[in-house]
Amino acid sequence: MKLAVVEGDGIGKEVIPEAVKVLDALSLPIEKVPVEIGYGKWKKTGYAITDEDIETLKNCDCILFGAVTTPPDPEYKSVLLTIRKELDMYANIRPVKPLAGITGVTGKSDFNYVIVRENTEGLYSGIEEIHDDVAYTTRVVSRKGSKRIAEYACKLAKMRNNNVTIVHKSNVMKSDKLFLDVCQQTAESGDVNYSDTLVDAMAYYLITYPEKYDVVVTTNLFGDILSDMSAAHIGSMGLMPSANIGEEHAFFEPVHGSAPDIAGEKIANPVAAILSIKMLLQWYGYNNEASLVERSVNYTLNKGIKTPDLGGEYTTEELGQAVIDSINSQ
Amino acid sequence: MKLAVVEGDGIGKEVIPEAVKVLDALSLPIEKVPVEIGYGKWKKTGYAITDEDIETLKNCDCILFGAVTTPPDPEYKSVLLTIRKELDMYANIRPVKPLAGITGVTGKSDFNYVIVRENTEGLYSGIEEIHDDVAYTTRVVSRKGSKRIAEYACKLAKMRNNNVTIVHKSNVMKSDKLFLDVCQQTAESGDVNYSDTLVDAMAYYLITYPEKYDVVVTTNLFGDILSDMSAAHIGSMGLMPSANIGEEHAFFEPVHGSAPDIAGEKIANPVAAILSIKMLLQWYGYNNEASLVERSVNYTLNKGIKTPDLGGEYTTEELGQAVIDSINSQ
Ligand SMILES: CC(C)[C@H](C(=O)O)[C@@H](O)C(=O)O
Ligand SMILES: CC(C)[C@H](C(=O)O)[C@@H](O)C(=O)O
Repeated sequence: MKLAVVEGDGIGKEVIPEAVKVLDALSLPIEKVPVEIGYGKWKKTGYAITDEDIETLKNCDCILFGAVTTPPDPEYKSVLLTIRKELDMYANIRPVKPLAGITGVTGKSDFNYVIVRENTEGLYSGIEEIHDDVAYTTRVVSRKGSKRIAEYACKLAKMRNNNVTIVHKSNVMKSDKLFLDVCQQTAESGDVNYSDTLVDAMAYYLITYPEKYDVVVTTNLFGDILSDMSAAHIGSMGLMPSANIGEEHAFFEPVHGSAPDIAGEKIANPVAAILSIKMLLQWYGYNNEASLVERSVNYTLNKGIKTPDLGGEYTTEELGQAVIDSINSQ
Repeated sequence: MKLAVVEGDGIGKEVIPEAVKVLDALSLPIEKVPVEIGYGKWKKTGYAITDEDIETLKNCDCILFGAVTTPPDPEYKSVLLTIRKELDMYANIRPVKPLAGITGVTGKSDFNYVIVRENTEGLYSGIEEIHDDVAYTTRVVSRKGSKRIAEYACKLAKMRNNNVTIVHKSNVMKSDKLFLDVCQQTAESGDVNYSDTLVDAMAYYLITYPEKYDVVVTTNLFGDILSDMSAAHIGSMGLMPSANIGEEHAFFEPVHGSAPDIAGEKIANPVAAILSIKMLLQWYGYNNEASLVERSVNYTLNKGIKTPDLGGEYTTEELGQAVIDSINSQ
C-alpha cells in the first residue's frame, strides 16, 4: 500500500507531519511517498504541479494532502481541482460530528451527519465563455455523475441510519430535476429512506435542526457551501477533515487552507489533518485503528489540550504528541 | 400612488390582510388594487398568472405579495420568477436584523446586515439544455447586471455603515471574476469600503460573525442561499420580509411560502408581511411611518404577543391587531 504525502504550503507543512506521526504510531504496512506540490514548487519551477506529479499520485492508492497557497498567476489552475479531475475522485465526503469539549456558535452537540458532494461536474465543469460584457459558466449535471454519487450516498447511508436527504434547486434549474430524479430512483431501489429539500431552505434547516440529518447528498457547489457552513456546528473550519473518493484513488485533506497568516508560528491546529488520517484508515478498512484515532483526538481535546484557535496555548506538535500518547496508552 | 395587492394562496390570504390593515392604519394616499394570482386562479382558469395580470402589476408603482402554492403542472413557470423578470426587478433585498425578544439558534442579537441579491440572471437565466443523459444550465453574469446591483449595494451602504462585502466563487468560476471586478470598481469609485469573500467561507462567517457585516452583495443563487440561511439568526423564516426592486417597480413579500400545512388555521405569523409593509413605506419615502411600523412590531413581540411558531398562543389577527393598537397609541 502506497500513500502519497503532500504537505503543500503554509500550515500544511506543520499539520501533515503530525498526522503522519499519528499514522506511524499505528505501525501499519503503508509506504509513504513524499510529493512536492504547490506554491513553493511554483516559485522554484514555474509549475505548482506537473504531469509527473500526477503520475506519482496515480501510482499510489491514496493521498494525504495538506494545503496549497495560490500562486499570484492569473492563469493558475487550482491544484486541488486538477487532482480531483485527473484521478476522477467523484465523491467529496465531509463528516460533521461534534468533537469533545468544543461547541460551535450554534451550541449544538447532538448532530452527526455527512455531506456527500458530487465532485467532478456541476459549476466546476470548467466550461466557460468569457466576453467583455458577459460571462457564461455551464453547470453540468449528468445522469452517470448523479448516479454514482447517489449510489455512494446510499451505500454510506446503509452503514449509518439509512437516511438520505437530497439537496437541489429543481424549482429553478431543470438540471437539478435530473439530479433529484436519479437520486430518488437510486434510494428507492436501494431501500434507503430519503427526502429532498431545496438548497436555500436546507441552509436554514441544517443550521437549525442538524440532528435531523444523516447523509446529505448534493451537487458540487451546493456541497461546497453547505460543508463550510457546517463548520459553525463544529466550532472551527480548522477541525474538519475531508475525503475525495474515486473508483481507484482516494485523497484525504483537512478542509482548512494554508493559512499564511499563522504559518511558521507552530500553532496551527493539527486536528483536521489527524482526523483525515482517521478517514484514510477507514478507507483502507482499518476500522479499529480509525476509531482509536478518533477516540484519542476526543480524549486529548477533552483534557483541554488545545491550540490557540480553540482558546488553548498548546503548539501543533504538543497537540499531535498528546494524541499519540493517548493512542499508545490504549 | 397605486399598490397592487396579491394575497396569493395558503397563508398569503391570512397574513396579507393584516399587513393591509397596518397600512390602512397609517391613512396614506395609497390606492389598493387587488389582483388574483396563483394556484387558486390556476384551478379556476388554467393559468396562475395572465398577461393581463402582468399589465395590471405594471400599471401599479408597487406590489404587496403574499405567497403562491405551486400548481401540480410539470410545465408550470414560477409566478415569482415571471414577475421579477417582466418588471425587471433586479435587486432582491433581505434585511437581517434581530426582532425584540426573539433569538435564533445562533443566540446572536447584535447583527444588522442586508443581503443585496442580483435578481435577474446567474443560474436563474432559464437557459437550459436538457437531454436524457445530461443537463446544462447556463449561469449568466453580465457587466450591466453586475454594475446595477453593485451600484444599488453601494448606495445602500452609503445610508448605512458604508461597508460592502462582495460574495463570489471566482476561484472556480471566471464568470464570478467579472462580478467581483465590477463590484470592486463600483465600490472603489463610490468611496465605499469593501472586501470580498468566497461564498463557501461566507456561509460559515455569516453564521459565526454576523456582527461584522453591513451590506452583502452577491449573485442570484448565492443570495438565495445566504438569505434563507440567515433566518437562523432571526429565529424563523416566518419573520423575514423582502423587497424586489427595479427602476420602475418594486415588490414586497414575506420570505415564507404559502404553508399549506397550517393554512386556514389562522395561526400564521403576520410579522414578515407587516415588515414588508415597512420596506414598502421606506421605498415610498415614508420613513417615519416605516420606523413606526417596525417599532410597533418590536413592541408587540416584546410584550409576548406571539403566534404558535414563536411559542405563543395568539392568532394571526390578534398579533396584527396588537401592532395596529401600538401604532395608534404613538
Ligand atoms: C479551493 C476550492 C477550489 C475548493 C472547492 O471549491 O472545492 C475548496 O473550497 C474545497 O471545498 O475543497
Ligand atoms: C420560490 C423560488 C423560485 C424563490 C427563489 O429561488 O428566488 C425563493 O426561494 C426566493 O428566494 O424568493
